[in-house]
Amino acid sequence: MNREERYMALAIQMAKETVGQTSPNPAVAAIVVRDNQIVGMGVHLKAGEPHAEVHALSMAGEKAKGAEIYVTLEPCSHYGKTPPCSKAVIDAGIKRVIIASHDPNPKVAGKGVEWMKSEGLEVQEGVLKQEADALNETFFHYIEKKEPYVRLKTAMSLDGKIATASGESQWITGEAARLDGHAYRHQSDAILVGINTVLEDNPSLTTRIVGGGNHPVRVVLDTHLKTPPSSKLIQQQEAPTWIFVGSEVEEHKKEALSAYPHVSIIEQPDSPLDVQEVLAYLGQQNITSLLVEGGGTVADAFVRAGKVDEVITYMAPKLIGGKEALTPVSGEGIRKLSEAAQFEFISTEQMGEDIKIVSRKKG
Amino acid sequence: MNREERYMALAIQMAKETVGQTSPNPAVAAIVVRDNQIVGMGVHLKAGEPHAEVHALSMAGEKAKGAEIYVTLEPCSHYGKTPPCSKAVIDAGIKRVIIASHDPNPKVAGKGVEWMKSEGLEVQEGVLKQEADALNETFFHYIEKKEPYVRLKTAMSLDGKIATASGESQWITGEAARLDGHAYRHQSDAILVGINTVLEDNPSLTTRIVGGGNHPVRVVLDTHLKTPPSSKLIQQQEAPTWIFVGSEVEEHKKEALSAYPHVSIIEQPDSPLDVQEVLAYLGQQNITSLLVEGGGTVADAFVRAGKVDEVITYMAPKLIGGKEALTPVSGEGIRKLSEAAQFEFISTEQMGEDIKIVSRKKG
Repeated sequence: MNREERYMALAIQMAKETVGQTSPNPAVAAIVVRDNQIVGMGVHLKAGEPHAEVHALSMAGEKAKGAEIYVTLEPCSHYGKTPPCSKAVIDAGIKRVIIASHDPNPKVAGKGVEWMKSEGLEVQEGVLKQEADALNETFFHYIEKKEPYVRLKTAMSLDGKIATASGESQWITGEAARLDGHAYRHQSDAILVGINTVLEDNPSLTTRIVGGGNHPVRVVLDTHLKTPPSSKLIQQQEAPTWIFVGSEVEEHKKEALSAYPHVSIIEQPDSPLDVQEVLAYLGQQNITSLLVEGGGTVADAFVRAGKVDEVITYMAPKLIGGKEALTPVSGEGIRKLSEAAQFEFISTEQMGEDIKIVSRKKG
Repeated sequence: MNREERYMALAIQMAKETVGQTSPNPAVAAIVVRDNQIVGMGVHLKAGEPHAEVHALSMAGEKAKGAEIYVTLEPCSHYGKTPPCSKAVIDAGIKRVIIASHDPNPKVAGKGVEWMKSEGLEVQEGVLKQEADALNETFFHYIEKKEPYVRLKTAMSLDGKIATASGESQWITGEAARLDGHAYRHQSDAILVGINTVLEDNPSLTTRIVGGGNHPVRVVLDTHLKTPPSSKLIQQQEAPTWIFVGSEVEEHKKEALSAYPHVSIIEQPDSPLDVQEVLAYLGQQNITSLLVEGGGTVADAFVRAGKVDEVITYMAPKLIGGKEALTPVSGEGIRKLSEAAQFEFISTEQMGEDIKIVSRKKG
């Protein structure tokens, strides 16, 4: 690692810790360096609050003059909720800018760089780009597609079962895998389940990690609005609950649930609900990342719509067997292997007694 | 690695290449060293032929006098098809013996070592024992249990499917995984499938690897003897075919198939066939390792009998879905999670686009 990569690696490490709290903005960090000494550091903490560059420049104060700044993402060039960071960098007297990721928005990509260059700043791009891109994969996807990045989470046995033939499903995977799964809830803007999961498991779908965490918006696909008012999603108000329903649900049923301030009923024209429409709606609501947690029929709808971007598989070292045992993706399934979306394996990792397998859609 | 470990590592590497060709004997290598120079090397090539020590001592000739010998497995002490190696080592004038694995047979373990010590040789045991033990895991299992070590091989999608709901199953995993699977056939004394697999796929169950390979004995569980005389297992005579049948099969059907010299019909008292009985019979026939390749009902019978020792899972980065899609272990399945045999993950490895997961029964 050369000098530039060393500083950028630190910035990426800083930004990494904020993943999940900046949505719908990306996670970004900046470091100001003069004479090989760090004189300013900053991260973007939360949408609506100052960007990373502003925090770092403010810490550096006068020392920013003639210094260099390391930023994990190209400084913005537009006036949004905050003034453009490119301007702040120029105004602070920075003489050299080192950037990892490009702005993913094709309309503004490169504009910040151009602006700073035109003001005489030296700009070096692409330092540890791959590592920085990985950090904001879900954000980049959201900017490009205008719909959330979809992660499908499954926990199954060595032979692909999520329960025994008699229906027992608790504790297939262990504590380490369960906790890791909650970290994904913390990082996701929304979590989605089907009505069967609500009726069978009555989940709370909140984030339970040590030290507390962000609760994602809880989304239920519930064409006929069967979510019971007594369910945890309605009674526990820690996070919003959005229930997608078809067009033929009686008004009084919708009103009964809408009366809860954290509950929204979202009517859709299609029955069964159309995954594409649901994702478009979520994108409009600034949901950049979605965790699909079950059950098998919902997972299948996402698979057949080609809308799974990443699969998190927790696999327990057990064999369960059974033609009637449930599997993580059920429903109709795809008919021809040639229609199956191609993924690629990104990582496998031991997690307690289980393994975690991450795979991502190709291309 | 110290000097002893270096020589032993080489011996283990040599023995490793003979795994699969020495059955029912273990894979063993020996190296004779004098004045830090290798003066003899040998491996056991095939049951009935000389043991590794004999080859190595013969190569060393007079130079064995006062030399040391490295052996991956404790030299034998009994008169079998060949004279005991402990005697050969003593007679050759070896002064120091370095051993990795102990003899797995409790009746004779340590006897070779005692004998050599009593003749004044210096003996060092347990050098790279773990690595050497791993080499002959199936053999050790066979000696201890008197039945073959059972490997279950499966190839499935990310969501645990071996075929689509419409039954398409070809090419779920890729070429690299397929070839690797054939290496297990080469290493196994026998391969086992159920009659449904014979009827549906008409497999040849031979080993197809570059450079050729050992064909395992082909075992079919076929209670009602439905194996067609036209099937490859009957028409292709490269390897023995052993068909296990129940007690109520008509004589003329058995005779028709027994007429083929490579075919044996083995009558069993139980219907459905009892996995335990089948394994006991195979053990009596010197089958030390068995590869179970399908289908789901047969796999389930082994799982429920608690007779799967290792699982080789090839996983393709695809999602298939479908409640009706076939899974690698079907049948009745276990009812309670607490009854599931516990495995542990040994390794995961990228294999072309797929991954290979090896897990082994605990304890």
